[in-house]
Amino acid sequence: MTDHETANKLAFERLAAATPVFTEVMTAGDALPGMKPNVILTSGAPMEWEQYTGGQRAAVIGGALFEGLASDAGDADAKLKSGEILVDGCHDYGCVGSLAGIYTASMPVLAVENTANGNVGFCNFFEGPSPKRLNYGTYDEEVRDTLLFVQDVIAPTVAEAVKRSEGGIPLRPIIRRALGMGDEMHSRNAAGTLLFGREMVPYFFEMLGDKPEEVRQTYAFMSDSPYFFLRLSMAAAKATADAARDIERSSVVSAMAFSCSQFSIRLGGTGNRWFSADLEPAQAKLFEGFTEADIEFMGGESVITETVGLGGFAQASAFTLQEYQGGTPEDMAELNRSMYEITVGEHPEYKIPFFGFRGVPLGIDAFKVVESGIQPVMDIGIAGGDGRQIGAGVLRAPLACFEQAVAAYSEEYGGV
Amino acid sequence: MTDHETANKLAFERLAAATPVFTEVMTAGDALPGMKPNVILTSGAPMEWEQYTGGQRAAVIGGALFEGLASDAGDADAKLKSGEILVDGCHDYGCVGSLAGIYTASMPVLAVENTANGNVGFCNFFEGPSPKRLNYGTYDEEVRDTLLFVQDVIAPTVAEAVKRSEGGIPLRPIIRRALGMGDEMHSRNAAGTLLFGREMVPYFFEMLGDKPEEVRQTYAFMSDSPYFFLRLSMAAAKATADAARDIERSSVVSAMAFSCSQFSIRLGGTGNRWFSADLEPAQAKLFEGFTEADIEFMGGESVITETVGLGGFAQASAFTLQEYQGGTPEDMAELNRSMYEITVGEHPEYKIPFFGFRGVPLGIDAFKVVESGIQPVMDIGIAGGDGRQIGAGVLRAPLACFEQAVAAYSEEYGGV
Repeated sequence: MTDHETANKLAFERLAAATPVFTEVMTAGDALPGMKPNVILTSGAPMEWEQYTGGQRAAVIGGALFEGLASDAGDADAKLKSGEILVDGCHDYGCVGSLAGIYTASMPVLAVENTANGNVGFCNFFEGPSPKRLNYGTYDEEVRDTLLFVQDVIAPTVAEAVKRSEGGIPLRPIIRRALGMGDEMHSRNAAGTLLFGREMVPYFFEMLGDKPEEVRQTYAFMSDSPYFFLRLSMAAAKATADAARDIERSSVVSAMAFSCSQFSIRLGGTGNRWFSADLEPAQAKLFEGFTEADIEFMGGESVITETVGLGGFAQASAFTLQEYQGGTPEDMAELNRSMYEITVGEHPEYKIPFFGFRGVPLGIDAFKVVESGIQPVMDIGIAGGDGRQIGAGVLRAPLACFEQAVAAYSEEYGGV
Repeated sequence: MTDHETANKLAFERLAAATPVFTEVMTAGDALPGMKPNVILTSGAPMEWEQYTGGQRAAVIGGALFEGLASDAGDADAKLKSGEILVDGCHDYGCVGSLAGIYTASMPVLAVENTANGNVGFCNFFEGPSPKRLNYGTYDEEVRDTLLFVQDVIAPTVAEAVKRSEGGIPLRPIIRRALGMGDEMHSRNAAGTLLFGREMVPYFFEMLGDKPEEVRQTYAFMSDSPYFFLRLSMAAAKATADAARDIERSSVVSAMAFSCSQFSIRLGGTGNRWFSADLEPAQAKLFEGFTEADIEFMGGESVITETVGLGGFAQASAFTLQEYQGGTPEDMAELNRSMYEITVGEHPEYKIPFFGFRGVPLGIDAFKVVESGIQPVMDIGIAGGDGRQIGAGVLRAPLACFEQAVAAYSEEYGGV
């Protein structure tokens, strides 16, 4: 084996061995390494404040207001311009953002430890079923109330339950089972949410006497939100993908992320450098009443799930998604199959029933992407310009990111 | 349309419109029309006592002992011979049996009302995860203790929860969703069980203060048994299929059932007459350590699910089953597809994601079976001679049943 192959094999093995365990709920300020009270994290490779536009810009401003860092939107904008408030990218703080992906210091986050590697990944909470959410670029009194409800009721209740579990809730068995129950752990987490809820209930029974209202509200919140588990899936994926960072000579993708304009990737062998290119249009299925013209990108790092072989890389586990994001079962299977051509191997436990329990394609090799021209497939939620979800669809990672990454890799290591 | 076609259309419409709602838990004695203290119900078209052999015979004797109708196996056998204890078929008492399918008067049953038609179907409870179960032909102290645990703890707790629901738990939405989550509602009910559990939890929260142990035990029992929901699926299917009984000129199957030796069907247009033939071997996948020689039929009426378009008729919703009962995804899809050729129509709400959300094939027309030679496909659990589950597999309904049924129909109505 060449050094390159050995490195990619190591990256694959780390991804395959990852054992994510949901261990605790903390505030972003306490949890995220390097987090500061005046920092607002958002999705994608970090940009200058002026480069954030539309919903993502509005979401950062909303975060500043929610955190009490500014008195109004104008004040927030001025402070973001002056650097009094700093905007930065989630990925360098151990977390990943859903859509715009706003983190402020006081927000609660779910901590997922990859016990096979000793590292931790974080994600904040689902905001609930309302179409108006901060991560979709909206901030008003309703959004604020929901964020406070999550912070004051949901997060502490989940925190106490996981504390009672002693050792945390292992997520690998939940993900493994959910893949046999129609989830791909990105745009579909209905089974994961139910399986996770089942793990929580015994602790909720213990807690009910002390805080009946909180327990009831939390269970209802979880039950009403099939997306609840996505945040745990994302934190698990971040904890998994980070184990494939900083592997010399690895050309395996260790992160994918996008902002309002740029799609970016990192490789294990090229450190913290992002390779970016313009976003391509998504193949979207829109909710009733919306058109292509309403689509607006406002960031997204839930594609960390594809980075670890889930989401679009496990579409054939989730044919139900066709109803939500379009496509036919045949297309979904074909797209999913093509991902085996750009990956290092197959996951030993995360399997796709329709492929005869073949493991999900795992470990995107940038060289294979460039050589084959096959772009990674991602299942994403689609935001609208008025700041809400208007649909879902399939996004392809731009080839240019991979071409840059391969060029940088070749420059650094003098070829493969 | 001919009278025959009109009748079949009516049968199909009744099957498609069925709205099963889990309404209450009762004892078999109180619930089942015609049930008496000295009656033991078992699966399949009823036979003389001497015709019951092996595990099914042992199960009936076990039922007599459990009910206190006999002092020992010899005494039970003598009383069954003399008629002091009566053995009869479940189907005529509004219920369906899983495997040997034993009902005695004191056993608790789940009542499911088809509110679209006003009739009720019943099924008893899953006995739990132990391989030793009365319905698999075993009766000893352990089996007795489990049956009593179900009777004394599980059933009253579920009974109180459903009473609190006011109006019952609608099962149609659960079945609809579960078909998108890898269940086919016969050999796979993992999602149905989770979805039903989610409906129960809010009531369990209400009940926890009064009966903490019972609630905890019941929730654990439900969580540990992905088969828990099967009994509700069966009761729902019985309540659905019974709506297609007694429709003059209908050649649509209203019941399928088997005993230790015979497979039998009924048609809507030919009343309560069973058309029977010898069972054919199942295509089985056996648990580690068992061989074909260990397989023993001991009855089964869970094939009521196939009668209403589920189970083998929805296999392509449940590719995960290949692990459990064998076959490849391609074979499963092909088998499932062939069922459209012998059915009247497609269910308007129960849909198969892999078929582009085509409705499940619904309403088996005996004429179509005979004309095409395509035998209905059923997903079944496989019992072993020592009285336990030893695997799972696919059973085909013998053509001879349908030939007899078609002949009887033609005789009665002078052709189609």
